[in-house]
Amino acid sequence: MKRALGVCYYPEHWPEEIWTEDAARMAEAGLSWVRIGEFAWSRMEPVPGEYHFDWLDRAIDTLGAAGLKVVLGTPTATPPRWMADRHPDMFARAPEGRVRGFGSRRHYCFSHRGYRRECARIVTEMAKRYGTNPHVQAWQIDNEYGCHDTVLSYSDAALTAFREWLAQKYQSPQALNRAWGNVFWSMEVASFDEVGLPNLTVTEPNPSHVMDFRRFASDEVVAFNRVQTEILRRHTNAPLLHNYMGRETAFDHYDVGADLDVASWDSYPLGFLSDRLKVSDQHRAQFMRQGDPDLQAFHHDLYRAVGRGRWWVMEQQPGPVNWAPWNPAPLPGMARLWAWEAFAHGAEAVCYFRWRQAPFAQEQMHAGLLRPDSAPAPALAEAAQVAGELADHGEAGCAPAAVALVFDYESAWAWQTQPQGRDFDYFRLAFEVYKGLRKLGLDIDILPPDAADLSQYRLVMVPGLATLRDPLRQALSRFEGVAIVGPRANAKTPDFATPVPLPPNLPGFDCIVARVESLPPDCAMPLETGGAFRHWREFLEGDGQVVLRSEDGQPAMMAAGSLRYLGGWPDPEALDAILRDAAGIVDLETQTLPEGLRCRCTATHRIWLNYTADPIRHGGMDVPGCGVAFERLEASPEAAGT
Amino acid sequence: MKRALGVCYYPEHWPEEIWTEDAARMAEAGLSWVRIGEFAWSRMEPVPGEYHFDWLDRAIDTLGAAGLKVVLGTPTATPPRWMADRHPDMFARAPEGRVRGFGSRRHYCFSHRGYRRECARIVTEMAKRYGTNPHVQAWQIDNEYGCHDTVLSYSDAALTAFREWLAQKYQSPQALNRAWGNVFWSMEVASFDEVGLPNLTVTEPNPSHVMDFRRFASDEVVAFNRVQTEILRRHTNAPLLHNYMGRETAFDHYDVGADLDVASWDSYPLGFLSDRLKVSDQHRAQFMRQGDPDLQAFHHDLYRAVGRGRWWVMEQQPGPVNWAPWNPAPLPGMARLWAWEAFAHGAEAVCYFRWRQAPFAQEQMHAGLLRPDSAPAPALAEAAQVAGELADHGEAGCAPAAVALVFDYESAWAWQTQPQGRDFDYFRLAFEVYKGLRKLGLDIDILPPDAADLSQYRLVMVPGLATLRDPLRQALSRFEGVAIVGPRANAKTPDFATPVPLPPNLPGFDCIVARVESLPPDCAMPLETGGAFRHWREFLEGDGQVVLRSEDGQPAMMAAGSLRYLGGWPDPEALDAILRDAAGIVDLETQTLPEGLRCRCTATHRIWLNYTADPIRHGGMDVPGCGVAFERLEASPEAAGT
Amino acid sequence: MKRALGVCYYPEHWPEEIWTEDAARMAEAGLSWVRIGEFAWSRMEPVPGEYHFDWLDRAIDTLGAAGLKVVLGTPTATPPRWMADRHPDMFARAPEGRVRGFGSRRHYCFSHRGYRRECARIVTEMAKRYGTNPHVQAWQIDNEYGCHDTVLSYSDAALTAFREWLAQKYQSPQALNRAWGNVFWSMEVASFDEVGLPNLTVTEPNPSHVMDFRRFASDEVVAFNRVQTEILRRHTNAPLLHNYMGRETAFDHYDVGADLDVASWDSYPLGFLSDRLKVSDQHRAQFMRQGDPDLQAFHHDLYRAVGRGRWWVMEQQPGPVNWAPWNPAPLPGMARLWAWEAFAHGAEAVCYFRWRQAPFAQEQMHAGLLRPDSAPAPALAEAAQVAGELADHGEAGCAPAAVALVFDYESAWAWQTQPQGRDFDYFRLAFEVYKGLRKLGLDIDILPPDAADLSQYRLVMVPGLATLRDPLRQALSRFEGVAIVGPRANAKTPDFATPVPLPPNLPGFDCIVARVESLPPDCAMPLETGGAFRHWREFLEGDGQVVLRSEDGQPAMMAAGSLRYLGGWPDPEALDAILRDAAGIVDLETQTLPEGLRCRCTATHRIWLNYTADPIRHGGMDVPGCGVAFERLEASPEAAGT
Ligand SMILES: [Zn+2]
Ligand SMILES: [Zn+2]
Ligand SMILES: [Zn+2]
Repeated sequence: MKRALGVCYYPEHWPEEIWTEDAARMAEAGLSWVRIGEFAWSRMEPVPGEYHFDWLDRAIDTLGAAGLKVVLGTPTATPPRWMADRHPDMFARAPEGRVRGFGSRRHYCFSHRGYRRECARIVTEMAKRYGTNPHVQAWQIDNEYGCHDTVLSYSDAALTAFREWLAQKYQSPQALNRAWGNVFWSMEVASFDEVGLPNLTVTEPNPSHVMDFRRFASDEVVAFNRVQTEILRRHTNAPLLHNYMGRETAFDHYDVGADLDVASWDSYPLGFLSDRLKVSDQHRAQFMRQGDPDLQAFHHDLYRAVGRGRWWVMEQQPGPVNWAPWNPAPLPGMARLWAWEAFAHGAEAVCYFRWRQAPFAQEQMHAGLLRPDSAPAPALAEAAQVAGELADHGEAGCAPAAVALVFDYESAWAWQTQPQGRDFDYFRLAFEVYKGLRKLGLDIDILPPDAADLSQYRLVMVPGLATLRDPLRQALSRFEGVAIVGPRANAKTPDFATPVPLPPNLPGFDCIVARVESLPPDCAMPLETGGAFRHWREFLEGDGQVVLRSEDGQPAMMAAGSLRYLGGWPDPEALDAILRDAAGIVDLETQTLPEGLRCRCTATHRIWLNYTADPIRHGGMDVPGCGVAFERLEASPEAAGT
Repeated sequence: MKRALGVCYYPEHWPEEIWTEDAARMAEAGLSWVRIGEFAWSRMEPVPGEYHFDWLDRAIDTLGAAGLKVVLGTPTATPPRWMADRHPDMFARAPEGRVRGFGSRRHYCFSHRGYRRECARIVTEMAKRYGTNPHVQAWQIDNEYGCHDTVLSYSDAALTAFREWLAQKYQSPQALNRAWGNVFWSMEVASFDEVGLPNLTVTEPNPSHVMDFRRFASDEVVAFNRVQTEILRRHTNAPLLHNYMGRETAFDHYDVGADLDVASWDSYPLGFLSDRLKVSDQHRAQFMRQGDPDLQAFHHDLYRAVGRGRWWVMEQQPGPVNWAPWNPAPLPGMARLWAWEAFAHGAEAVCYFRWRQAPFAQEQMHAGLLRPDSAPAPALAEAAQVAGELADHGEAGCAPAAVALVFDYESAWAWQTQPQGRDFDYFRLAFEVYKGLRKLGLDIDILPPDAADLSQYRLVMVPGLATLRDPLRQALSRFEGVAIVGPRANAKTPDFATPVPLPPNLPGFDCIVARVESLPPDCAMPLETGGAFRHWREFLEGDGQVVLRSEDGQPAMMAAGSLRYLGGWPDPEALDAILRDAAGIVDLETQTLPEGLRCRCTATHRIWLNYTADPIRHGGMDVPGCGVAFERLEASPEAAGT
Repeated sequence: MKRALGVCYYPEHWPEEIWTEDAARMAEAGLSWVRIGEFAWSRMEPVPGEYHFDWLDRAIDTLGAAGLKVVLGTPTATPPRWMADRHPDMFARAPEGRVRGFGSRRHYCFSHRGYRRECARIVTEMAKRYGTNPHVQAWQIDNEYGCHDTVLSYSDAALTAFREWLAQKYQSPQALNRAWGNVFWSMEVASFDEVGLPNLTVTEPNPSHVMDFRRFASDEVVAFNRVQTEILRRHTNAPLLHNYMGRETAFDHYDVGADLDVASWDSYPLGFLSDRLKVSDQHRAQFMRQGDPDLQAFHHDLYRAVGRGRWWVMEQQPGPVNWAPWNPAPLPGMARLWAWEAFAHGAEAVCYFRWRQAPFAQEQMHAGLLRPDSAPAPALAEAAQVAGELADHGEAGCAPAAVALVFDYESAWAWQTQPQGRDFDYFRLAFEVYKGLRKLGLDIDILPPDAADLSQYRLVMVPGLATLRDPLRQALSRFEGVAIVGPRANAKTPDFATPVPLPPNLPGFDCIVARVESLPPDCAMPLETGGAFRHWREFLEGDGQVVLRSEDGQPAMMAAGSLRYLGGWPDPEALDAILRDAAGIVDLETQTLPEGLRCRCTATHRIWLNYTADPIRHGGMDVPGCGVAFERLEASPEAAGT
């Protein structure tokens, strides 16, 4: 499959007279995909039951005539105003009880059955009309599930559905009481109708209650999405996808992804660094105009897993955005670099968001490839440059990785539910491990928690996995490389209790976490070989070999066979030593990359990406500031020819 | 008109036996005005429809007999408890839906028509009784509109009135949809009754929706006020005024002021520095007992504009207050200095708040001119000293200014609605420009955004004006001094969209803001000539002359004829250079004032004010710490004689 | 009475098969008390009116058979789920109106009369069944009143009861209006039914209104508790107690304590240092694993007063807890040291919380004496060590103190209601004074605000006492040592007004607080003799002798006879000088203790406690890190023999 570029477009925002020219300019810039439709419900169905698809027909025709392939979005993230009259109870409720009403977007509760029927209706109409349209070559369902904190809803609809979900899971209230330990604090229920939502309690609710609510809420997203996939499958053979967000863990993306053909995500490197990464102010300032050097790569690898190998960037930041606390402009070159970072990790397509900056409404300060006055914005030329480069480097895909990192959504919920230390954040833990690996120049696969085959890998990292389930446990017991498990791994039963025997209870490994402690930000536990544990530290016991100690003489990491259990949250220095040591054991070559330089291998090249403003020379390669360099891999088939 | 002093008094708080002595002591201290009545509704009408004005008659008589002139306040900021039973829905609602009920003050929604009728009733009774009373020489309507964040209400009454306001403005829902860009995110409405209030949305509401709500809310304050002015005009010839607050931008004061005769404001230098100024901790500590050296002057100049030349200080802080996060005592001399700062800027009267410190209820920790035990508090002697000085310096008024600063309430709403950077604050921007001018020893006029005549000025500053309307645009095109427009000027259409052609679109000036960025607090964009842009930076294009560049070579300010467009938020160093340069061009003499020293000219004197604790010698003048000095102006008619 | 150890146990959490072994292991470790039952309502009464006490019978028998004495808890802190159906309005409401519902604990409003009747019913059943059970040797009523901020409720039940309480207190609305100063801002009411709760107001409510609500809420806790004491007294002679919390000031503990026989409290040194002490980050890090060296002692002395001499630690932290922002593990030795700190201050019993760490529900991360897998946790051996030491040091009690500190709950409410400076915190003020005394090696008694006899003391401290009532005023006028009163003492009338004559109005002492100021954290007022006032400073006038001045020459402390009035909040350096000076006057011997070393005398020993990790040699004693040392007092009767 060939790599491709695309763009997001809103024909309904512009006079029909300029559609043709817009399409021509897109094609001229080398774009092949154009996503449309995902917010246009009020134009498709301005009055309940009255469909107006003529304008959309013409838009698709116009785009298709210019040689563009259309990704058609279902508009279910933005139900029109009349929907609120038909379903006054369709809105989500915030934890404190506040209705989250009409006036922006994503104003629906995933559990509302009436709204699901409305979605089925509009999607059926669209599927029938466009399912076989030759220009519509992919479908996007809804938009950014979870964005604006919309997975968890405390509405009446959610309560009803949650009780039903619990009844299915537990079959009897007694079973639920036992599973949750409701005897504690007299929380026992006599029927499923006595179960409430885990909000508005005096102090923290039962964490098992919260965890089941989180699982339920994730399942509701899956079910909501499936309503649409099932309809679309009946009418089209085009691939179905959804555009996920960055650092969004409120639902299990693997589960949603299982019903789709391709994963895609919306990559806003500057916005995400500004509003959702826990890093130092110094780091934030240093990469303010480039984005964190690893955050995009992490998500690329994650969504490659969610898409079972197939994935896109559906929205690529082209300039300053409007929604972060501060919104600087990217440095020249970054709109190109970000695209190449994605292609290096196997993206099939990278679509910029959006074609022309809208002059009105919420996102009027969000840059596009064109300015509001239709003049080119800086990113347009960079996109065109990438399009040109695709002639030489056009084959989608990436090299197999020797390193794997297990990433699990349920663990994110687990440690939000019961952090034990205020700053224990699962995403941050996993991302710091990822960053540590990538700084060594390693290629990484991200794996779901039910990964059953590790045979391709030499190094496997399993930080913070709340519950180790059978497939992965068995894969680990067969594994012949080095697997570093922990900290805080297998620390909970599936019911969210502390397991007895105590964690981590790894196969053939006598190692027990006798107790744990969380550490305030300014307190570290230094390790004998440099670096320190921060945030979290465990006291290990057992006969396993102690391969690392903290300065107070306590075991910090124990080993048995291929398995190592890491009893704390390593800071970057400690992590670096731990990873280099493990890589050495399995003969994995590592590098010491200069700050801001990163690389990823495809089948034929190692692609170098320089996130700093200044040129870097490293290992014989010259990589311009904010630039990309292509290093031919000797063993690659293409290497001979290119 | 002669300058005068006054005081706020609450006869209803004290035994009638001491009124006479209180009045005598006021007169003896040299006070001529006494404001009363504004919170006494429960004493004027203890039971609905039963009026008790006898005590008020006696109070006015007693004060008048002592030679004092009365400002009579309408009590509509404190409806009595029985009002809540008559109008249970009269309360404002906070954005999250919470009722803001009875138990303190300002507990009414400006939009509640029933409450407006009650206000009309009590004001009619008062106007009939006191409209021609010889001692009542001025009226104050209500008290501190907007205080405690009371302009915006999300009540049912507000919703109903907002829909009516929109229907008047747009005439058709289609016109509203077009103006707001409701096609974005399917927000279109089919009738005005489908429009909601812009709260309780999932993510940010449409900014045009918010802006119209802000305009509506401001208009409701104007309408509420006008109910009372119309009644009072029928019964009295005394001037009508309202006491505005400091740093209050939630309604358009120019609009309210248009219905009044005199503007007045409540000046709390220490409280405002503590609770509402964005300054460094070091600055806050340095002026903790004196107040910011420019905040009072800024408001004096602002309210002189609101009052179309006529203005008072209605409440002057006399000692520690009760409501700021911390409440230090002023240094000796400040109660006098503050009065002279006001007179220097043209105040007709300065009234201290309050006569005797109340020993009970919410403000019992708020100092007065007397202590609770009736002994003099420190400010009483300072007030008496000022009264003595008025013999020599008694004529109200101030010198014409050569510098103007445009200040616009709608722009404050605009950048709150869409800051783009978390700390983009319009008031702060305008105030920093004001401070920069005043540190150069310049006299300043503040102008409304519809100022149509700039011919009196040599330097005009227009920072952050969201929308440049015709009168000012035309005045600028005729202007012959130097006008510095920007940053972020004319950046929005009246409908709150991005204009095409792009901003600033100044007359005869080819300069375009191609894109903008907001900068985190720790990131600056240095300028070639020193200083830096902070918070905000624009990328300018066009044929205008580049008169300033940032260190990365980008244009920072462009010029054409009298107009300069400034493409960023200058820090104090950059601003100083920009202003000195502009002043030089128009032959405006500037000074370099020592820290904490300020001055303002009247027709006859330059009045020097020293906000530091230590004496300062500057330009031949000796100004004691926390003191005032009067420099005779040679050209002044009085100079010869005094 | 002999000192004893105990533990908290939840038989309902564990299979009945292991109860016997648990009991045996408790006895073996030297524990004598075991507290049970306080959260088990859903097991005692799974269905309304159906009592299941058989399991509890067997649990008590099993424990008793092992020689353990049972503290039986009433389960009223955790009403079962069915209670919510019987009394849907029984829940407390948060200030913003949110219901605080079922799903954790303490989900009841103290004012709900229906719930009180339910409590009376279950307590009656328990009292009848166990009132004379020989193993039940003490009763605990409810659990941790006030925990999770549960004293103040804004429910309908609270409103009804508050109005009744006010009617009883004031008899007429006119009297209430006068007492509160409701004339201010027209807040007057015409009947008690017009009084609302002091929440949901536009700006701050009347502080007298708030204070009466605080008094009412405290009285409701007393009344709620008394329902149970009255029932239990009819059926048992065993002592009644309640387990109070740390740094909990929302109700008057002296008042609740008056109905009980013994006070007890729940001591979590690490959790409390982490989540509720206002100290520097450096101090928090330094004692992160030991707890603040004075916080336990302060509460021990406080609850000794609340218990009128008799007191326990009912829950002693044994390892990391689950509820603080961060939860580190204690250093080895601390579980023993904390017990000895309690015994040194006169504790009769110290019970660890809890026996075995629960693997399920909210507190699964809270350590116990056993791990979840029943292996011993580190604290078990330390408890056993203490048990062994009790053979030599077994007599409960402590030496009489020569120093007293008055601590008053109503003052805590007063300065929360009207802090005047954001960080004016009464507990902090009192605790800092306590810390200053204890750093001098002094033994301290804490006294209630109605203490009428000071003759035992040589030094008495009265900081921040809002209202000085007659018994203490008279005791002070008779006092012959040195009493340091202030800052902010006697600053309010009983109605919460400013008194006239002005404060402090001490007997025979011409000293007036002419005005006050609060100071931001970075601003201090240095004193002539070193140190400074922080947070708060008063301007004193009068003929009293000035014994301390601030650097600006103002009086900082005045004296007359035995009384000194301190006009500011002293920092540690200033406080140290003030206390040493006063101690010198009354011949009280002081020491200079090394950081982290503390001591307390019993009748026979001075017990030394080292809160640092390293050994300390001081005054001839060697105290190991995290250790205890027993210094025989020469004058003691035991000294000769031991
Ligand atoms: Zn989004
Ligand atoms: Zn105010
Ligand atoms: Zn508790």
